Amino acid sequence: MADVKAKAGLEDIVATDSSICFIDGDRGVLSYRGYDIHDLARHATFEEVCHLLWHGHLPVKAELGDLQSQLAAARPLPEQVLRLMKMLPPGQAPPGAGAALGNADGMDALRTLTSALAHYDRDAHDNSPRASYRKAVRLTGQMASLVATWGRMQAGGGPIAPDPALGHAANFLYMLFGERPDPVAVRAMDVALVLHADHELNASTFAARVAAATLTDMHSAVVAGIGTLKGPLHGGANAEVMRMLLEVGQDAPAERIDAFVRGKLARKEKIPGFGHRVYTTEDPRATHLRQMSQALGKRAGNLKWFAMSERIEAIVKAEKKLNPNVDFYSASTYYTMGIAIDLYTPIFAVSRISGWSAHVLEQLANNRLIRPRAEYTGPAYPQTWVPLEQR
Amino acid sequence: MADVKAKAGLEDIVATDSSICFIDGDRGVLSYRGYDIHDLARHATFEEVCHLLWHGHLPVKAELGDLQSQLAAARPLPEQVLRLMKMLPPGQAPPGAGAALGNADGMDALRTLTSALAHYDRDAHDNSPRASYRKAVRLTGQMASLVATWGRMQAGGGPIAPDPALGHAANFLYMLFGERPDPVAVRAMDVALVLHADHELNASTFAARVAAATLTDMHSAVVAGIGTLKGPLHGGANAEVMRMLLEVGQDAPAERIDAFVRGKLARKEKIPGFGHRVYTTEDPRATHLRQMSQALGKRAGNLKWFAMSERIEAIVKAEKKLNPNVDFYSASTYYTMGIAIDLYTPIFAVSRISGWSAHVLEQLANNRLIRPRAEYTGPAYPQTWVPLEQR
Repeated sequence: MADVKAKAGLEDIVATDSSICFIDGDRGVLSYRGYDIHDLARHATFEEVCHLLWHGHLPVKAELGDLQSQLAAARPLPEQVLRLMKMLPPGQAPPGAGAALGNADGMDALRTLTSALAHYDRDAHDNSPRASYRKAVRLTGQMASLVATWGRMQAGGGPIAPDPALGHAANFLYMLFGERPDPVAVRAMDVALVLHADHELNASTFAARVAAATLTDMHSAVVAGIGTLKGPLHGGANAEVMRMLLEVGQDAPAERIDAFVRGKLARKEKIPGFGHRVYTTEDPRATHLRQMSQALGKRAGNLKWFAMSERIEAIVKAEKKLNPNVDFYSASTYYTMGIAIDLYTPIFAVSRISGWSAHVLEQLANNRLIRPRAEYTGPAYPQTWVPLEQR
Repeated sequence: MADVKAKAGLEDIVATDSSICFIDGDRGVLSYRGYDIHDLARHATFEEVCHLLWHGHLPVKAELGDLQSQLAAARPLPEQVLRLMKMLPPGQAPPGAGAALGNADGMDALRTLTSALAHYDRDAHDNSPRASYRKAVRLTGQMASLVATWGRMQAGGGPIAPDPALGHAANFLYMLFGERPDPVAVRAMDVALVLHADHELNASTFAARVAAATLTDMHSAVVAGIGTLKGPLHGGANAEVMRMLLEVGQDAPAERIDAFVRGKLARKEKIPGFGHRVYTTEDPRATHLRQMSQALGKRAGNLKWFAMSERIEAIVKAEKKLNPNVDFYSASTYYTMGIAIDLYTPIFAVSRISGWSAHVLEQLANNRLIRPRAEYTGPAYPQTWVPLEQR
């Protein structure tokens, strides 16, 4: 036995080689296939990033056109999955209906519905590289439709058919709101999708790779990713940030904001949206989301959420030396865009499906079962068996 | 950076402390909470093992009675989940219906239906230790009902209501076959459930812990486990073993068996059911399943599957020095019990839910996000951004 005992949470353990994502946490660098996240956030569409993640290079026009067509073709949901969506209980059961009716928040619904997509996917049980790639594209198209349609139905609207003439971000907003989105909103959504697309071995991607390494199918791996992303120490944080801002209240004076945050810190409560395992300096994604939150607030004529976020950032930085992560300014950005809070983490998944699937493809291309060990700390072996009557 | 590069698949990396399961792979020892698997296989019921895994000690009579009542109370499936089950496409679409109708094998169905159970679980979003424990018990009761009812419906029967007077193994067989099972079958099923209940950081349990460590809910973690168990390098192997035996054919003469296995080895194909990351000697679970396969075969008056399995074992041992694992003799055991092949891996889950949930409870009791690193091997950073028009 030459066991290596890792620090808790596998901190600093290099679990695999990967050619997808390069992070330098001390310099605040994030890059996909060598392209800096700042360049991608400024210039790239989500579709270009998908191509980059899946194929390793930026697409030329013909490649991009092909991918756009494939993604658009994947947008209509199987009729059976739409029917299932309508059967699911609402995210918030009406008062009094309670437990009998049930409850499915956005991530619960996305987990069940993505699992169900497999039943109607002709490639579901084909793990060949070609079929797995088709599933990566298809799931990326479908997940945007699932989240937009779910969001629309939760708001009391009917499903909107996708528009193949629109890009991925624009079509998502169209299916969610039922109106042609304006270019500023489209670019904001595109940037958000670009920023969330991949982040090396984050917990949900790692869970997807652990699943894939048993040679299970793409849907199973992605569903593992969705369930993992849901946690408040991961993607679930963006919704928690907004709930915190709303708890403070947009008209709260500065003193109330300060008292709220200092109170939380004094009680040793976690402030959602701060700190990151990998970055010791600013998360480069936060830089863009901060700018976006401000720009969208200015445009909407309401900078209160942005200002409150900045104030909270300053206190947490001063008191805890923690930087905002990707989730902190996504909250006020999405809120200003009029998106329901229950959709924030699902939107993270709408983007991260590109990274999850890229990592599953990479795992399958050079696979080994991921199976670490535990150090046993329980009762000494062997315990003597005692029959029930004599216990 | 003090990064430690792990061997592929995190081999020999100790990812966490755990007081649940002790394995000594060189001595062929497996124990739950210090109790040797041989003692448990000979004497314990699955309910006793559940109590042992969840509470750390064998139950006294009152504790066992309480747990049996709670498990029995959890057996009836929510009416909405039963309705959803009826809507899912069959495991094998009728010829000609094909892709339009869809297809859900046992593990696909179990993944979707377990995810859907969360929508109707009043504790779904409560991660407190008490609620998480209630969910462990409830999911253990429900998963047996899901698999038995699914199996029954696939065979063209209607759902059978659970019988609270029966133990876990007996009730499972009753709900699956619609007849009171005989004591030999009940004991065989109980032993199979005991043997599969936990196995330290196997891939599905590890996936469940990676999910749980984001503080996501129990259902999300368990669904990650199901999707991971499905893979043929993990639980999916038991079904693959039986498909292989059937391919050889029960009346195949010895020479045909030999030629088949040697052919596979010559083509460097994997023989399902052999080899294990942790054991260098015989998997102690295989010892019991081999005995069970033989005893049940003798009783059924057909030892051909057992004899074929032994012959394959001898060749693989001689040629590849690989031992059979837990999956190899489960195949002929379940087949002799008249269980459909598509249920073999789901039955693994009916048992392993006890271990998954024990590990999730342990993870939540002392949590840290599980987030390793990757070593970047892609294009050098930074690549220069080139606009689409100039590519």
